[in-house]
Amino acid sequence: MMRNIALMQSRVGALGATLRPHVKTSKCIEVGRLQRDAGALGITVSTLKEAEAFFAAGFDDITYAVGIAPQRLDRVLALRRAGCRLTILVDSRESARAVVDKGRSEAHAFDVMIEVDTDGHRSGVRPDDDLLIAIGEILQQGGAILAGVLTHAGSSYGLSTPEALQAMAEQERAGCVRAATRLRAAGLPCPVVSVGSTPTALSAEKLDGVTEVRAGVYVFFDLVMANVGVCTPQDVALSVLATVIGHQADKGWAITDAGWMAMSRDRGTQAQQRDYGYGAVCDVAGTLLDDLIVSGANQEHGIVARRDGTADPDIVRRVPVGTRLRILPNHACATATQFDAYHVLDADGTTQVWRRFHGW
Amino acid sequence: MMRNIALMQSRVGALGATLRPHVKTSKCIEVGRLQRDAGALGITVSTLKEAEAFFAAGFDDITYAVGIAPQRLDRVLALRRAGCRLTILVDSRESARAVVDKGRSEAHAFDVMIEVDTDGHRSGVRPDDDLLIAIGEILQQGGAILAGVLTHAGSSYGLSTPEALQAMAEQERAGCVRAATRLRAAGLPCPVVSVGSTPTALSAEKLDGVTEVRAGVYVFFDLVMANVGVCTPQDVALSVLATVIGHQADKGWAITDAGWMAMSRDRGTQAQQRDYGYGAVCDVAGTLLDDLIVSGANQEHGIVARRDGTADPDIVRRVPVGTRLRILPNHACATATQFDAYHVLDADGTTQVWRRFHGW
Repeated sequence: MMRNIALMQSRVGALGATLRPHVKTSKCIEVGRLQRDAGALGITVSTLKEAEAFFAAGFDDITYAVGIAPQRLDRVLALRRAGCRLTILVDSRESARAVVDKGRSEAHAFDVMIEVDTDGHRSGVRPDDDLLIAIGEILQQGGAILAGVLTHAGSSYGLSTPEALQAMAEQERAGCVRAATRLRAAGLPCPVVSVGSTPTALSAEKLDGVTEVRAGVYVFFDLVMANVGVCTPQDVALSVLATVIGHQADKGWAITDAGWMAMSRDRGTQAQQRDYGYGAVCDVAGTLLDDLIVSGANQEHGIVARRDGTADPDIVRRVPVGTRLRILPNHACATATQFDAYHVLDADGTTQVWRRFHGW
Repeated sequence: MMRNIALMQSRVGALGATLRPHVKTSKCIEVGRLQRDAGALGITVSTLKEAEAFFAAGFDDITYAVGIAPQRLDRVLALRRAGCRLTILVDSRESARAVVDKGRSEAHAFDVMIEVDTDGHRSGVRPDDDLLIAIGEILQQGGAILAGVLTHAGSSYGLSTPEALQAMAEQERAGCVRAATRLRAAGLPCPVVSVGSTPTALSAEKLDGVTEVRAGVYVFFDLVMANVGVCTPQDVALSVLATVIGHQADKGWAITDAGWMAMSRDRGTQAQQRDYGYGAVCDVAGTLLDDLIVSGANQEHGIVARRDGTADPDIVRRVPVGTRLRILPNHACATATQFDAYHVLDADGTTQVWRRFHGW
């Protein structure tokens, strides 16, 4: 994890932008502090619970990178009045008006960014859509602080070659800078130009015009990211410690106590070049047992079997009942949330327990 | 939920067995109490955390229906010495020996069941395998209390016709009774014959020779169970309250704040007759908006769109920003665990908050 944190910080810094890590992956104060110590400026959150927890721990520059629901403005206001510079996000006239109306009735100027859609995968306004300017004007004329533009090229998760990733990073950069340029040309402020996803952040060749990069899953990495090509399985810093509880010897199965409740139901590698089932199998020291995956899962049962579908005739001797295995996850964000704490393995062999939070 | 609890209790009772509900679905003491009040005898758990939490709340007859890891026997022993009749499960000589060895060293007789495999989907000993008798003898001669046999026809989740479900229920019943008969013929005790899954429990035509039925997800039901055919979407008692945060009008999308973190990554309806994406969409009163599903999800974003893939040109007017929607889950066990509490809607319009637990 320390290596992953240093890697992203140095890559983003070398391209002239600041890094605002997304803490939705870890939901853990200690991890956020390490990212800050490495040079990160501010954090990104996906829920107000994350904002509240990190603000309580001294993080006061927070971007809530999910379009604001009007019903949440009271919680946003409470954080801001307590001293948190919490920036919110809109991508429609309706949301912008709701923010402006709330600001007027509370005599408060919210910091607001406009979400830009640079790859069609989810939310946001297209850079060349006149809606962009209309939203900017509603916010500006309504007394909000127009803080900038924000985009997330989430479709980068579906790519797997350096060329495609570089092209997507450039598409994300150029689209977001184009939106900022149009807002400025319309006489509107746009101080922050925020882009990012782990794959594009690690693939960008330039970030001209971008002020900050957001990325989350890099802190742990996972098998989806290994398939995308921005890490190797050996870089994955999160694993589930499982125990063998039985076998079906004739099928070549070992049964463990790490089912989908532990690994999550995320099957993100299913459509990728290498399908790891519900996870890749390592020995307790973290060395990959490269022929094995978690081929199936029930709530509290994982089936460990060969990835190629053949039966290992030696499975009972190889991993007897009671054997501890480490399972690497498809998707770190989804697996981590199944647990209330991390058992942190230090280089000197000691361990610590770091709490993480859950829910909204 | 009250109707679902009454339905299962009456169906199992009418066939002459007792009901031992699986509390892994709710992980909620109040729900367990309602099942007990309706006539359930004992509970089933999938983790020792469930056992500890329910025992602390006065439930003292608990079956831990996941093969025991030798490392967990100390926690099991602590519960038993505190007065909990906690029964554990084995399906191998190795596990049986570990239990016997621990019992000897602690001068304690564990209650142990043998897991029987009646459908090949996971763990257990085949009813006609000599291993069954060998395990029984290890336990009996080693001083453990051989409490019976237990099976779970989890492959019933993959079926969808009454005939196939009835046949699987009979296969589950007959296989488990066969195992009990063989143990008894070998001079071994087998007081409990425990079968169950929600689909087979609701499909069995007879339970001759069975003493108890276990079932879990019936308490809430879900879309997977609706596709299996043992409930309708209207019977689903669990929903996620989502809020519309934006649109992509040209695509016919409404974007909500209920992504996969809220719904879980479970895509259990994907291979079934009706694919609901990440969930079925209802209005806030619970009426199905039958053309809509959650067609895609990111961590904190859900995409609501037409199930048939066409774009609803009226989506922005139909569900404007701020609209509350109820999303029915594919899999109640997976969705519920994403939350720390249930907001319980009573028939008189009042609400309560019931905590649920998480982790191991």
